[in-house]
Amino acid sequence: MISANSPQTETKQSLSVKGASSFDLRSYLEERRRLVDQALERSIVVTYPEKIYDAMRYSLMAGGKRLRPILCLATCELFDGTLPMSMPTACALEMIHTMSLIHDDLPAMDNDDYRRGKLTNHKVYGEDIAILAGDGLLAYAFEYVAVHTQGVPAEQLLKVVARLGHAVAATGLVGGQVIDLECEGLKDVQVETLHFIHSHKTGALLEASIWSGAVLAGAEPSDLQRLSRYAGNIGLAFQIVDDILDITATQEELGKTAGKDLKAQKATYPSLWGIEGSRQQAQALIDEAKAELAIYAEKAIPLMAIADFVTARTH
Amino acid sequence: MISANSPQTETKQSLSVKGASSFDLRSYLEERRRLVDQALERSIVVTYPEKIYDAMRYSLMAGGKRLRPILCLATCELFDGTLPMSMPTACALEMIHTMSLIHDDLPAMDNDDYRRGKLTNHKVYGEDIAILAGDGLLAYAFEYVAVHTQGVPAEQLLKVVARLGHAVAATGLVGGQVIDLECEGLKDVQVETLHFIHSHKTGALLEASIWSGAVLAGAEPSDLQRLSRYAGNIGLAFQIVDDILDITATQEELGKTAGKDLKAQKATYPSLWGIEGSRQQAQALIDEAKAELAIYAEKAIPLMAIADFVTARTH
Repeated sequence: MISANSPQTETKQSLSVKGASSFDLRSYLEERRRLVDQALERSIVVTYPEKIYDAMRYSLMAGGKRLRPILCLATCELFDGTLPMSMPTACALEMIHTMSLIHDDLPAMDNDDYRRGKLTNHKVYGEDIAILAGDGLLAYAFEYVAVHTQGVPAEQLLKVVARLGHAVAATGLVGGQVIDLECEGLKDVQVETLHFIHSHKTGALLEASIWSGAVLAGAEPSDLQRLSRYAGNIGLAFQIVDDILDITATQEELGKTAGKDLKAQKATYPSLWGIEGSRQQAQALIDEAKAELAIYAEKAIPLMAIADFVTARTH
Repeated sequence: MISANSPQTETKQSLSVKGASSFDLRSYLEERRRLVDQALERSIVVTYPEKIYDAMRYSLMAGGKRLRPILCLATCELFDGTLPMSMPTACALEMIHTMSLIHDDLPAMDNDDYRRGKLTNHKVYGEDIAILAGDGLLAYAFEYVAVHTQGVPAEQLLKVVARLGHAVAATGLVGGQVIDLECEGLKDVQVETLHFIHSHKTGALLEASIWSGAVLAGAEPSDLQRLSRYAGNIGLAFQIVDDILDITATQEELGKTAGKDLKAQKATYPSLWGIEGSRQQAQALIDEAKAELAIYAEKAIPLMAIADFVTARTH
């Protein structure tokens, strides 16, 4: 998948020649998003029963930022890993993320009609198919990693399987969503509870994305610890920014129902710290995250730029 | 987990001394079910947020026959594998099976109030938690296999991970449930469609149970082919018997709403072949399944007895 003329090699060359000042994050993200979209496009082939494959593809190909896959690819590359090592896990991360969106949008959960600017899965295919499309994506994610990853020792791949499971189960996404649902309509939510929700609902999978990329490339324990701290910080910053955007952005900009948290009286960071206070907290987290990567010098430029990108969304 | 005094060793000794005529299937199943229940009991420790762990445990510990785990243990043992090799996968199979029951029972799917003689998960915990409990069990199943299996080369374990995913995704359980929902209320369902539903909705996970046990123990390709044929036959026989029981058994005997298929005008094998014709078909499948295992002589007695048990339920 990587050849002498591939865009990835060109990016590497330009990085080593020009350094941080000339790194073009927009082109980098666009290029990676395109590679991830191509891989996702190939990952699910529609066959009988077509309806379920269509439903899975409808949400999977609805055009997100592909942040989790891109973080996985970038971290793997930081430790000299290749796309055949990281792309199947990158795709699995997006399948898992998509599953969580489909299920969160269900009438029994957040009851959302729009997602990424399109009707939610159950509005198009019905609740029954939406539940099954989520189940199908979740199960397929594990199969996909186990079958399609190339050039990674089986022991390391099993660690990635375990981490993905941990990030989704009651120890991760599911646990975060449970407390999020419990807090709906409550006005006296503690900051610790808000942290729990987001570190599980958003942070766990973001951290798994970064950690998996490193493990696939065979990174050392000290590297994994450093990247875990980077990941924890940008995960939390990401959620703070999402909460700010829910207040400041329009529905068109968000691609989903705006002001929904306010309407549902959900506890958010801006409701605790105000919008400006939340922006400052997010920036402090990003600065700390970037400091963790200083040791990798120019090789870490993409991951540093992605960290900046998280807060840049609020401006 | 296996010692000189363990019940497993005693079973083996009595087998080699007494042979098929004295094999006590009831004791064998009871003993294995007890071992599986103990392992499942330990597999999920309740912690914050307690509600989701309670919900997962509620359905997981609701007292099924544990047929999938027992098939996995028995097949692993046929090829001289041990409990530390097979028990984590056996538990994962029951977690996956339980997930499929919780989601199938939801109002948006089969809308069932009772399962295994108890209120269904969503009747006790609400639809939102029931969806999440299913998601949590499915994700945890993969983590559990990857983390807790002992004595199995990582390459073989990855094959099991892949097969479990394949058995649940649109290629398995999920695909079968999609067509099952589509056929509800239809009167002219073809036998090919009915086969598709059951080979995917029931057969795929039963076959994965048997196949995984063999792979965990390092069985040869020729053994895997033989066991796949055994598995395909008992999977289909199992579903035919379930359809018969839906008509002939009382709600008390079934532990779930009886006559539900008839009421929903679901296509069933008895509606195609009659009850006696269905019994004969099931028996023929079981006879073929047992013939596949003749080559293993006395070692296959438990798997042969389990095959007989599938049809014995109708009498």
